[in-house]
Amino acid sequence: MRRSIYGPDHELFRESVRSFLDRHVRPHHDRFIEQGSIDRGVWLEAGKQGFLGLGVPTEYGGVDAGDYRFNAVLVEELSHVSVALASCLGIHVDCVTPYLVDLATEEQKRRWLPRFCAGELVTAIAMTEPSGGSDLAALRTTAARRGSTWVINGSKTFITNGASADLVVAAVRTGPGSGSKGISLFAIGTDVPGVHRGRKLDKVGQPEADTAELFFDDVAVSDADLLGEVGRGFEYMMERLTQERLNSAISNLAHAAQLLAETVSYAKDRTAFGQAIGSFQYNKFLLAEFSTTIDVTQAFVDQCTLAHVDGQLGPTEAAKAKWWTAEVQNRVLDGCVQLHGGYGFMRESRIARGWTDARVTKIWAGSNEIMKELIGRSLGL
Amino acid sequence: MRRSIYGPDHELFRESVRSFLDRHVRPHHDRFIEQGSIDRGVWLEAGKQGFLGLGVPTEYGGVDAGDYRFNAVLVEELSHVSVALASCLGIHVDCVTPYLVDLATEEQKRRWLPRFCAGELVTAIAMTEPSGGSDLAALRTTAARRGSTWVINGSKTFITNGASADLVVAAVRTGPGSGSKGISLFAIGTDVPGVHRGRKLDKVGQPEADTAELFFDDVAVSDADLLGEVGRGFEYMMERLTQERLNSAISNLAHAAQLLAETVSYAKDRTAFGQAIGSFQYNKFLLAEFSTTIDVTQAFVDQCTLAHVDGQLGPTEAAKAKWWTAEVQNRVLDGCVQLHGGYGFMRESRIARGWTDARVTKIWAGSNEIMKELIGRSLGL
Amino acid sequence: MRRSIYGPDHELFRESVRSFLDRHVRPHHDRFIEQGSIDRGVWLEAGKQGFLGLGVPTEYGGVDAGDYRFNAVLVEELSHVSVALASCLGIHVDCVTPYLVDLATEEQKRRWLPRFCAGELVTAIAMTEPSGGSDLAALRTTAARRGSTWVINGSKTFITNGASADLVVAAVRTGPGSGSKGISLFAIGTDVPGVHRGRKLDKVGQPEADTAELFFDDVAVSDADLLGEVGRGFEYMMERLTQERLNSAISNLAHAAQLLAETVSYAKDRTAFGQAIGSFQYNKFLLAEFSTTIDVTQAFVDQCTLAHVDGQLGPTEAAKAKWWTAEVQNRVLDGCVQLHGGYGFMRESRIARGWTDARVTKIWAGSNEIMKELIGRSLGL
Amino acid sequence: MRRSIYGPDHELFRESVRSFLDRHVRPHHDRFIEQGSIDRGVWLEAGKQGFLGLGVPTEYGGVDAGDYRFNAVLVEELSHVSVALASCLGIHVDCVTPYLVDLATEEQKRRWLPRFCAGELVTAIAMTEPSGGSDLAALRTTAARRGSTWVINGSKTFITNGASADLVVAAVRTGPGSGSKGISLFAIGTDVPGVHRGRKLDKVGQPEADTAELFFDDVAVSDADLLGEVGRGFEYMMERLTQERLNSAISNLAHAAQLLAETVSYAKDRTAFGQAIGSFQYNKFLLAEFSTTIDVTQAFVDQCTLAHVDGQLGPTEAAKAKWWTAEVQNRVLDGCVQLHGGYGFMRESRIARGWTDARVTKIWAGSNEIMKELIGRSLGL
Repeated sequence: MRRSIYGPDHELFRESVRSFLDRHVRPHHDRFIEQGSIDRGVWLEAGKQGFLGLGVPTEYGGVDAGDYRFNAVLVEELSHVSVALASCLGIHVDCVTPYLVDLATEEQKRRWLPRFCAGELVTAIAMTEPSGGSDLAALRTTAARRGSTWVINGSKTFITNGASADLVVAAVRTGPGSGSKGISLFAIGTDVPGVHRGRKLDKVGQPEADTAELFFDDVAVSDADLLGEVGRGFEYMMERLTQERLNSAISNLAHAAQLLAETVSYAKDRTAFGQAIGSFQYNKFLLAEFSTTIDVTQAFVDQCTLAHVDGQLGPTEAAKAKWWTAEVQNRVLDGCVQLHGGYGFMRESRIARGWTDARVTKIWAGSNEIMKELIGRSLGL
Repeated sequence: MRRSIYGPDHELFRESVRSFLDRHVRPHHDRFIEQGSIDRGVWLEAGKQGFLGLGVPTEYGGVDAGDYRFNAVLVEELSHVSVALASCLGIHVDCVTPYLVDLATEEQKRRWLPRFCAGELVTAIAMTEPSGGSDLAALRTTAARRGSTWVINGSKTFITNGASADLVVAAVRTGPGSGSKGISLFAIGTDVPGVHRGRKLDKVGQPEADTAELFFDDVAVSDADLLGEVGRGFEYMMERLTQERLNSAISNLAHAAQLLAETVSYAKDRTAFGQAIGSFQYNKFLLAEFSTTIDVTQAFVDQCTLAHVDGQLGPTEAAKAKWWTAEVQNRVLDGCVQLHGGYGFMRESRIARGWTDARVTKIWAGSNEIMKELIGRSLGL
Repeated sequence: MRRSIYGPDHELFRESVRSFLDRHVRPHHDRFIEQGSIDRGVWLEAGKQGFLGLGVPTEYGGVDAGDYRFNAVLVEELSHVSVALASCLGIHVDCVTPYLVDLATEEQKRRWLPRFCAGELVTAIAMTEPSGGSDLAALRTTAARRGSTWVINGSKTFITNGASADLVVAAVRTGPGSGSKGISLFAIGTDVPGVHRGRKLDKVGQPEADTAELFFDDVAVSDADLLGEVGRGFEYMMERLTQERLNSAISNLAHAAQLLAETVSYAKDRTAFGQAIGSFQYNKFLLAEFSTTIDVTQAFVDQCTLAHVDGQLGPTEAAKAKWWTAEVQNRVLDGCVQLHGGYGFMRESRIARGWTDARVTKIWAGSNEIMKELIGRSLGL
Repeated sequence: MRRSIYGPDHELFRESVRSFLDRHVRPHHDRFIEQGSIDRGVWLEAGKQGFLGLGVPTEYGGVDAGDYRFNAVLVEELSHVSVALASCLGIHVDCVTPYLVDLATEEQKRRWLPRFCAGELVTAIAMTEPSGGSDLAALRTTAARRGSTWVINGSKTFITNGASADLVVAAVRTGPGSGSKGISLFAIGTDVPGVHRGRKLDKVGQPEADTAELFFDDVAVSDADLLGEVGRGFEYMMERLTQERLNSAISNLAHAAQLLAETVSYAKDRTAFGQAIGSFQYNKFLLAEFSTTIDVTQAFVDQCTLAHVDGQLGPTEAAKAKWWTAEVQNRVLDGCVQLHGGYGFMRESRIARGWTDARVTKIWAGSNEIMKELIGRSLGL
C-alpha cells in the first residue's frame, strides 16, 4: 500500500538525501566501519546541503523546515544505510536541535547554531551514567556552584558521537536531594579543560558510530553554558523524549524494511535443493509475515509522524512506537539472517551487520521495559 | 491516539447503531445464545433503520451510503457485542450486497433487494464444501443443464445464517473440467424444493450464529437465479474477497479492542495478594503490550479502510489485514482470559465467550495460511 | 525416542486402564458430555479395578502401589480420553489421597478410605473462593468454635467433582488473623445440613466435569471431621501441591501428545489443493516443531516423575513442570485446531473439545503466573 | 533438579577439564579473541591430558573412553568458556574422530591418529561450499582420476579450524551424476601443493575460531588419502551427523545455561530505580521462564546423551535436540542481553559476545529448517 503522508516536496528532499548518501557515504562506508567513525566531511557536506539545520531558524543558519516529515525522510534514508549513521546524525538533528532551539539564549544560539547547522560543531547528549542505565533520575554527576562558575565532576557513558563531538549536552545534578529534582543541563565544549574522552566503546554492532565515555574532572563552566533554567533539566529531557522516541521508531522500521527488501531479493536469487530458497513454503510464509509486520507497523509510525507534525503526539504513543518498532526490527532481522544461512553470520554481509547493529534499539532511548512501564501507567495500572 | 478516519456523520451513525444495539440486541443477547440464533426481529429493526441497505441504491430500498466507513462503523459496533452478531449481519451487508448489486439483473434486483434491505430476505453465502475447506476451486456441487433449468446437487457447510437464510448465494460447478474454471453463482431460495437445511452446527463458539449445512438434492433453478455470467463465478468471488477480508479485519480488531478495554477495567478492580491484579508488573506489561498491539493494528486497518473507500485496497493488503488481525485478536483474548483467572473459563463471562468466538477468525474467510500464500506470491516468491 | 521410566508392570497396568476406558468410558463419553457429568458407574468400576486406591494401604481397601508411576500411567490414559476425566478422577486419586492417608486419624481412615477406594465416596477439594482466586491465603470461609462443634460459613467455587462429591476437603479459617495462618482443613460430607451445592458451572470446556460452587451455611462439624491439626491447613496444602502439580503436568502433556498424534493422522489423510495438508511445508514444519516440543517436555516430565518416586521432587521443579506443560498443551492444541480448519471449530471434533478443555490448565492448580513467582523466588530474585 | 546421567568418573574428568581451562585457556581468552585463533599450545596441552583422544583406541594414542559422556562433559565445559572453543575442539574430537576411527585403514590410523591425539595434527571438516549451503548433495568440488592419483578442484567455506588445520576431511565428487551419489571423502593435508587457505572469515561472533575458506587447485592425492570406499561419502556423512548434532545440542545448552547463571547473578547485583533489576516482576518471570526452559531442555539432551551411549540415538532425535537447543540458546541469550542493558551491547561483556557467538548455531550443522524437514519426514509427512 502506498504511504500517504509524504508529498512531492518530501520526495524531492528524499532524492537529495539519497544523492548525498550515494556520493558521500556509501562509497566510504566500509572505511567508516573500519576506522570506527564517520568522516567529518560527511557532516560538513550534510551541513552544506541543509540537512543538519532542518529544525533551526534561518537566522541561525538553519533551513527551518517547519515540518517534521523532512526529518523523517532524512532518518529513513540514513537508516537504509545503517543504524549507526542514522543514530549519529539523528542525535544531532532530532535530539540536540530542540534543546538548543528551545532552551538556548540568544547569545548561545548565535554562538552554537550556525556551526551546528554547518556540521562544524558536532553535538552529543550525555545522560546515561555507568551506574544508572535507564534510570535517569539516579544520576550522580554533579555541578557545584563556586562563585560564578559551576564545577562539574562525574562520568557519562554510551554517548553517541562521544569521541567526535565538539559540544555535549550533559545532564548533571546542580541541587541537593535525589531523584528527578535538582538536575540541570549544560552544553559543554569538549575542549574545556577537565573534559576527558574515555575509550571509544567496542560495541557488538554499529562500529562506525564513535560511541564513547566522557569524564568530567573539575570541569569549570559558567552560566553561559547552562541550558534553560537551573533545576529543570529532568523536565526538559522528558519533554524532548517524545521526538527522540519517534526518531527511533522511524529509524528502526526503515532499517528493517530496507533489509527485508534486500532479503526478499536474496531469497529469490539464492537456490538450494534445486529451487529458490524463497520459494520454500516455510520461507515464503516467513517473508509474508515479515512483509505484513512492516506494513502494519509503518501505518502506525506514519500516523505518529503526522500527529507529531500537528503537535499532537503524546509520550504514550511515542513509547508504543519505540518499543514496538525495536521488537519488529530485531525479529525481522533475525529471520533475515537465518535466510542468508552461513553468509548471515559473516560481517561482510549487510544483513549480518544490520542484525548486530539493531540489537541495541531495544535498550537505548529508554529500554523497551521502560516503555511498557510508561504505557502501563497510561492505562491507569 | 485519536483515530482520524471518521467524521461527524460517521459518529452520528455510530450513535444510532449503539442505540439500536442497546435496545434491540443487548437485552436479548443471552437468549439468542441459548436459542442458537438471533431473532428475526433484529433483522427487521436493522432493516428499518437502514443498516442493511448501506450499499444498496435507494431505488431498491437501500440508503446508498456511498462510503464504506459507514459499513466499518456498523461492523465495529456489532463486534463490540459479539463476533457472531457481526458475522451474521456482516455476511448480509458486506459480503452479499456486492454480489446482488454488481451482478444481479434489473429483474433480480427488484425481486430481492427491497426485502434484502428490509431484513425480510436474510441471505447467506454457500461456498465451502465438506471436502474442500479453503480450496474453493475444488468444489464438487454441480449444476447440470436440463433444457431451460439447472439441476443442482451437492452439499455446502459452515454457512453463516445457514439455518435462517431465505436466499443463498451458492457457488456451483456448471462446466466440465476442474479447478477454478466452470464455476457459476446462483442465488437460491431456501424454499425451493430439494434445498434441505442440515444440522445447525454445534460450534465451539458463536452459539448465537445459526451456522448450518445445506444440501441440494436435484434442486431445479433457472437462469433467472443465475448471478452474472456462466463460468465466471470464481472470478466474481475473488473480486469480492477483498471487501470480505477487510470486513473480517475490522471486526477482529474491534472485538479484541473492546474486550481488552473490559479486561483493563477488570484488572483495576480485581485484587489478589492485596493489590489490583493489573498493578502486578507482569500483568501491567502484558496489558501495555496488548494496548500497543491494538493501536498499531488499528492504524493499519484504518489505512486499509480509507484505501477501500478510495477504491485502492488491493487483495494483498486485505490479506495482510485479515490474518494479522485474526492473530492479534486471538493472542490478546487468550491473555485476557488468563487475567480473568477461573472466571475466564466460565461461559457466563464475556471474555470466555469472546475467546471461543474468536478462534475461527484464523480459519474462515480464507485461512491465515492461505493469506500468507497470497502475500508470498505478491512478493514474487 | 522410547521412554524409559516404565517397566513391564506399569505397561500391564496401562493395558488394564485402557481396557477399562474402552469398555466403560469411551462408549459413553458423548453422553457424559451431554449430561454434564460422569456416571457414578465409572467410579464404581474404577474402584473395582483398584484404580482409586493406588496410594491407599491395603488395610483400608487400597492397593498400596507404592510407586507413583502407576498413578502416572492412570493419569496419562485418562488424559488421552479427556482433560475432564483425568481431572475428576485425578483430584480423587492424586490430590485427596495424600490428605486422607497422611493426615486422617485411624477412625477417619476406617470411616472414609474403604468407600473412597471403592468409588462409593467420591471426593473433592474446596479451596478456591470467589473472591480469592489463586491467593489461597486470603480465604474467608470461617469455622467458629462453639463448644465441641465447629460452625462453618462461607463459599467455595471452581470445585471439580463439586456436584457429585460425597466428601469435600475444605480449607477454612479457624483462627483469627489473616494470611496463611489460622487455616485448618475439614473433610465435610456433602449431606451435612447447611452444605448447599451451587450451580453446576457452565464452563468453556470440560462439560463432563461437574464443576460447582459449594456454600456452607452454619454447617456444624466436629473435631472428628478435622484433618490433621488446627491451624496447619496452609502448610498441609503447600506440602501436597507438589504432587498435584506433577499430576497436572503429566495430564497436560499426555493430552497434548494424544491429540497431536490424532492431528498428524488427520494431516496425512485430509487433502487440499491436491495434496495431503500435512505435506505442505509450513504445516510439516509446524508438526515437526510440535513433535519436538512434546518429546523434549516428556523427558522433563518423566524425570520429574522418577524424582517423585524417589521422594526427591521439589516444589520448584513441580512448578516448572506445571506451567511449562500447560503452555505446551495450549500452544500445540491451538495449532492442531488450525490444521483441522473449520472442523477444528466444531464441538463434535475431539480437537475442538480438547482445545477448549485445555484452556484452564494455565489457570488452575496455581496459575502459571504463580508458578513463575515461585520459580523466581527459588532463583533468589 | 540434579542431573543423573553422570557418575563420579565423569565428575572427576570434569574437574580435570575445568582445571585445564582455568590454567591454559581462560587467562589467554582475550588474546585468542584478539588474534582470531586459539594457541596451538592449547591443543598440545589438551592432547597431553588425553582430551583429544577420547574416542580413539589406545593403540593409536587415544584413551578409548568408550563412553560418550566423557565427550559430553568436555563439550559442556568448553562451552562454558565459549561457543568457539567448544566448536574448534569439538569438530576435532566429536566430528572427525569417527571418520578416522571407523573409516581409516590401519596405515592411515598409524599415520594420523597419534598426532591427532597429541594435538599435533589439528583437523577440520570441509563439506560446505559457497554455492551450496546446507544442501550437501549439491557439492561441486571434484576429484578426477588420473592414473593412480586423484586431482581435486573446487572450494569449500565456513570451515572451522580452517586456518590452522593440518588435515582436512573433505567431501568431493568422484563420480559422475548428481545429488548424493558419487561423493567420496578424502583426508587432505593442508601442506599438499594446491591447497590454498582463503581468507580467515570475519564473522559476527566467535572471533577466536579461525573459520576459513579452502581452495583446491589441482590438488593431487592418492588412494592412501581416501577415507572408506569411493562413492560412499554421502552415506558416511549422514551416519556421523547424529553425533555431530548431539554435540551441537550439548554445547548449545551448556552455553546458554552458563550465561543464564551469570545473568541471574548480575540481575541480583545490578540495581535500578532503587532495587535489584532481577526483583522487578517482569524480569523475575523472564528469568523463571528461562530457568524452566533450560531445565526442561537439559532433561531431553541428557536423555539423548544416554541413548547415544547405548547406541540408540536416532537421527530424528538428534535433529530435534539440535534445532531446539539452538532456538533455546538464542532466545535465552537475547533475553540475557536485554537484562544487561547497554553493557549487553558491549563486546567486553561475556553476554554480548555469547549472544553474537550463538547466532550461527541455528544455521550450522544442518540449519534448523533442515532439521524440521527431517523430523517432518519421520512423521510420515
